[in-house]
Amino acid sequence: MSTNEIEHLITVLGRLPGLGPRSGRRIALALLRRRTTLLDPLRDALTAVSERVVECPLCGNLDTCTPCRLCTDERRDAGLLCVVRDVADLWALERGGEFRGRYFVLGGLLSALDGVRPEDLGFERLYARAAEETVREVILALPATVEGQTTAHVIADHLEALGRPVTSLAQGVPVGGELDYLDDGTLSAALRARRPV
Amino acid sequence: MSTNEIEHLITVLGRLPGLGPRSGRRIALALLRRRTTLLDPLRDALTAVSERVVECPLCGNLDTCTPCRLCTDERRDAGLLCVVRDVADLWALERGGEFRGRYFVLGGLLSALDGVRPEDLGFERLYARAAEETVREVILALPATVEGQTTAHVIADHLEALGRPVTSLAQGVPVGGELDYLDDGTLSAALRARRPV
Ligand SMILES: [Zn+2]
Ligand SMILES: [Zn+2]
Repeated sequence: MSTNEIEHLITVLGRLPGLGPRSGRRIALALLRRRTTLLDPLRDALTAVSERVVECPLCGNLDTCTPCRLCTDERRDAGLLCVVRDVADLWALERGGEFRGRYFVLGGLLSALDGVRPEDLGFERLYARAAEETVREVILALPATVEGQTTAHVIADHLEALGRPVTSLAQGVPVGGELDYLDDGTLSAALRARRPV
Repeated sequence: MSTNEIEHLITVLGRLPGLGPRSGRRIALALLRRRTTLLDPLRDALTAVSERVVECPLCGNLDTCTPCRLCTDERRDAGLLCVVRDVADLWALERGGEFRGRYFVLGGLLSALDGVRPEDLGFERLYARAAEETVREVILALPATVEGQTTAHVIADHLEALGRPVTSLAQGVPVGGELDYLDDGTLSAALRARRPV
């Protein structure tokens, strides 16, 4: 049908998350049709991140400098350490713009099903980091799933035994959320966490 | 939040067909996490097609040799010329494996709405090609849409005036198609084109 080079591009594109053979073909064709405006910029962008982006040894964020900009920004509060599952969640919190402290990226969650144990994640490094003098509060910003809450529980137990203050994200009704579209667990959690108006 | 290089990669990814900022972020992260298995192969595949893939001057197909392999394959019937809208449709026909002739890629369809006229597409080149001695039949494999059928009609009128035999794809019930899920137009067309069993 087409050349080996095009077939190979379609295969690689189809391996990207959320894509498959069909979307891979559509994207490959768009790239071939728009070389200067789409294909070349994408290739150059990939080359740039491949050569320059590294993982921050302190927090696990991705940046072109090391330590990353979030770890060295003096305007951020080094007393607040926010624990996130991965860089995607870190980015989500940064888009929110509310949090102005430091991060620790776990790189995953504990999972009996997938055999992920504390030693597979960076728990020792997290505990060492949380034990530093400057840290006043550890905020667990982990998913409100079984694995997220199990992971949060294990970390909270350990840090509380060390006497470090630990908090976690509030669970409740999403902003703009209709009550009858919420799952029961969220509604119950919001009710338990009710506050005076 | 993240670096300019990562932001730029997300922007470029988000411009690909079917993607947006959210899927762009997800794909960028996957690429950064899997550099040797995903990022580098994608960059190399893009470089390869960028440097080597050209448009066939005879048929409009994309290939690394010119004329393309479909135009020079002696096992294919040069007497059958199949007119398609674009390379995506050519690939779809090649995946089917039924057609073993040559192609002509129009690169678009006539459209009063979008102001696409016959001179904007390759009609003169198509007519010259169809007039060649070797061509026994021109097959119009154009979409069963208003624009596709308008385009087919204009081409068929011209070629029939030149005395060239023109056919088009049969319209009917898709293989495996339930009748009550079909739109009325398809069902009517299938009824009109009914054949003895
Ligand atoms: Zn960092
Ligand atoms: Zn060709």
